[in-house]
Amino acid sequence: MEKGRILLAVTGFHPQRWRDLLSAEREVVLEPDGASDPSITYAVVWKQKPNILASLPNLRAIFSIGAGVDHIFADPGLPDVPIVKIVADNLTQYMTEYVVWRVLDHHRQGLLYRSQQPKKIWHEPQQRPATDISVGIMGLGNLGRAAASVLLSLGFAVNGWSRSERPMKGVATYSGEAGLIPFLKATDILVVLLPLTPDTHGIINYGVLKELRKRNGIGGSVLINAGRGRLQKDADIVRALDDGTLKEASLDVFEVEPLPKTSPLWGHPKVFVTPHAAATSDPVHLAPIMLRQMDAFERGEKLANLVDRKAGY
Amino acid sequence: MEKGRILLAVTGFHPQRWRDLLSAEREVVLEPDGASDPSITYAVVWKQKPNILASLPNLRAIFSIGAGVDHIFADPGLPDVPIVKIVADNLTQYMTEYVVWRVLDHHRQGLLYRSQQPKKIWHEPQQRPATDISVGIMGLGNLGRAAASVLLSLGFAVNGWSRSERPMKGVATYSGEAGLIPFLKATDILVVLLPLTPDTHGIINYGVLKELRKRNGIGGSVLINAGRGRLQKDADIVRALDDGTLKEASLDVFEVEPLPKTSPLWGHPKVFVTPHAAATSDPVHLAPIMLRQMDAFERGEKLANLVDRKAGY
Ligand SMILES: NC(=O)c1ccc[n+]([C@@H]2O[C@H](COP(=O)([O-])OP(=O)(O)OC[C@H]3O[C@@H](n4cnc5c(N)ncnc54)[C@H](OP(=O)(O)O)[C@@H]3O)[C@@H](O)[C@H]2O)c1
Ligand SMILES: NC(=O)c1ccc[n+]([C@@H]2O[C@H](COP(=O)([O-])OP(=O)(O)OC[C@H]3O[C@@H](n4cnc5c(N)ncnc54)[C@H](OP(=O)(O)O)[C@@H]3O)[C@@H](O)[C@H]2O)c1
Repeated sequence: MEKGRILLAVTGFHPQRWRDLLSAEREVVLEPDGASDPSITYAVVWKQKPNILASLPNLRAIFSIGAGVDHIFADPGLPDVPIVKIVADNLTQYMTEYVVWRVLDHHRQGLLYRSQQPKKIWHEPQQRPATDISVGIMGLGNLGRAAASVLLSLGFAVNGWSRSERPMKGVATYSGEAGLIPFLKATDILVVLLPLTPDTHGIINYGVLKELRKRNGIGGSVLINAGRGRLQKDADIVRALDDGTLKEASLDVFEVEPLPKTSPLWGHPKVFVTPHAAATSDPVHLAPIMLRQMDAFERGEKLANLVDRKAGY
Repeated sequence: MEKGRILLAVTGFHPQRWRDLLSAEREVVLEPDGASDPSITYAVVWKQKPNILASLPNLRAIFSIGAGVDHIFADPGLPDVPIVKIVADNLTQYMTEYVVWRVLDHHRQGLLYRSQQPKKIWHEPQQRPATDISVGIMGLGNLGRAAASVLLSLGFAVNGWSRSERPMKGVATYSGEAGLIPFLKATDILVVLLPLTPDTHGIINYGVLKELRKRNGIGGSVLINAGRGRLQKDADIVRALDDGTLKEASLDVFEVEPLPKTSPLWGHPKVFVTPHAAATSDPVHLAPIMLRQMDAFERGEKLANLVDRKAGY
């Protein structure tokens, strides 16, 4: 089999850097060029323009440069070829760093210390050990499991929620709709690492936040969302923070990105905002992984990390 | 052997809570009472008043409620009995939380994001993975090793410096005076977990900070001190921050504590201050450990975690 050509359609994501790396081994056509091109076999995408993939008569696989694939499904003319999601140590490590960083900052009362310092207040608040705190991870997939394992080594109790039952040593696991409320009731710090699908859209709403347990040593529940913005209702988070349902939140993702200047989240004293930066897709690490997968596919091997189109992730 | 009585001399450290817990099993006398009391066998101390220990004719062991013992040596009349330092999972976990929290906050550019947020700036700076960053731990003892192991699981490169050679899997170890400069030159983020002794007093000075490597992905060197304040020269840290030798610092300890209101560290934009709170000695967890050691000692077993008086820790 010949080396298939690549359509690169990575809106807003340094197309030149991706092209330079991929074109070291294969021919690369940059969107919006390439429409209807019969020589194109693969697409490497992030928010591709609608219908361009449908125009490719010989497309054999679509590679997402991000761990999420919701951006691909936004295309109304998405052709029925395999979609590969990225699984890479580099990306997983970045996300673990982010999750552990944010959990520790809330747990160790970073907000309080940063408010005391300008007032020169030398005061040690009561501090519970990690063993007294439950971190609940919504979405116990590649990223959730990696973060869980470092949180366990720090001594936190860890809960996990997934669609199917996913046993993990040391983690209390819950699954499906029936498992959601029990999972929330056992959770102090909620970490969202779900994919965005029709089932998960808007799942982080006021009613769900209300279920988080209050009997914890950090003086209230905490939300950390590093999954996708449309998993959450921004306005519900503000409401929950303002009425004490939530103590604090770290948000990397938002219903609309970039977060509009008019959003009350920017200036909220209990919110820590990052610009969808929890785990960046770094082409230097990810392009070679995709090239290896294309080579293997052309040798007749099966594609790994395939998206389940029915489930949407 | 009879159950020996305890002198409790824990200045500024919730004596009542310690007394309640210890007195469940043994008789406890609270400093300043107890001087010259022949029935007292043990002292449980934090900054005991000078010479009170020397007055006890039958003192058999001194227990420090903190991992450091420098506060005990400040007593000019310190009697020549064994000194036991505390080693406890609870304390070790607190310190690991603190170290990992501070390392991640510097590595993940918390300061930058917190300065962008009030200005509603949606900007992702370049972010290097943990694998590109070396954390150097000065003092690879109980606390240093525990922190190192979680840092390794996050992907950081880890260096360690100790008095004697201390091999640890995955860690590049250096020892003694000859190892100091090579250790610093290989370190981006310096974490200080040394005991305060005549040898380590003032070791964190401008000259030492100058040796930290600059060729790293976080735009400068970082200092984290959770050991003891008098390991450092506060003024040298300010100088190093102001001339760019250091990029940022997290300080839990200071030459004088509480940190005086006149210290420029309080208001320094690149410094994160905590009030000697990295790892609190929690009597609920530590008192039972001491009681078990006293029981074992009276059964004829050797005391564990003894201080080397010559080394001073
Ligand atoms: N902020 C960022 O920078 C960033 C970077 C990368 C990724 N992400 C986000 O992180 C997400 C997770 O990535 P991943 O690689 O860990 O994905 P993954 O391996 O596919 O894991 C997804 C997890 O979510 C669970 N899940 C999916 N639908 C569910 C439902 N309806 N109810 C309950 N659980 C459900 C899955 O359950 P099963 O185990 O039963 O399948 C699985 O445990 C991505 O989809 C992306 O949106 C964000
Ligand atoms: N901020 C807080 O809340 C807090 C709480 C608890 C403890 N602490 C501090 O943390 C310190 C460390 O505690 P630990 O339990 O880990 O002590 P430890 O087990 O005794 O370890 C001390 C380490 O420092 C090394 N060291 C001592 N003197 C040295 C020298 N002159 N040159 C090079 N290395 C030297 C030792 O080397 P060897 O391995 O060769 O002996 C050892 O690796 C305590 O002494 C205390 O000051 C602070």
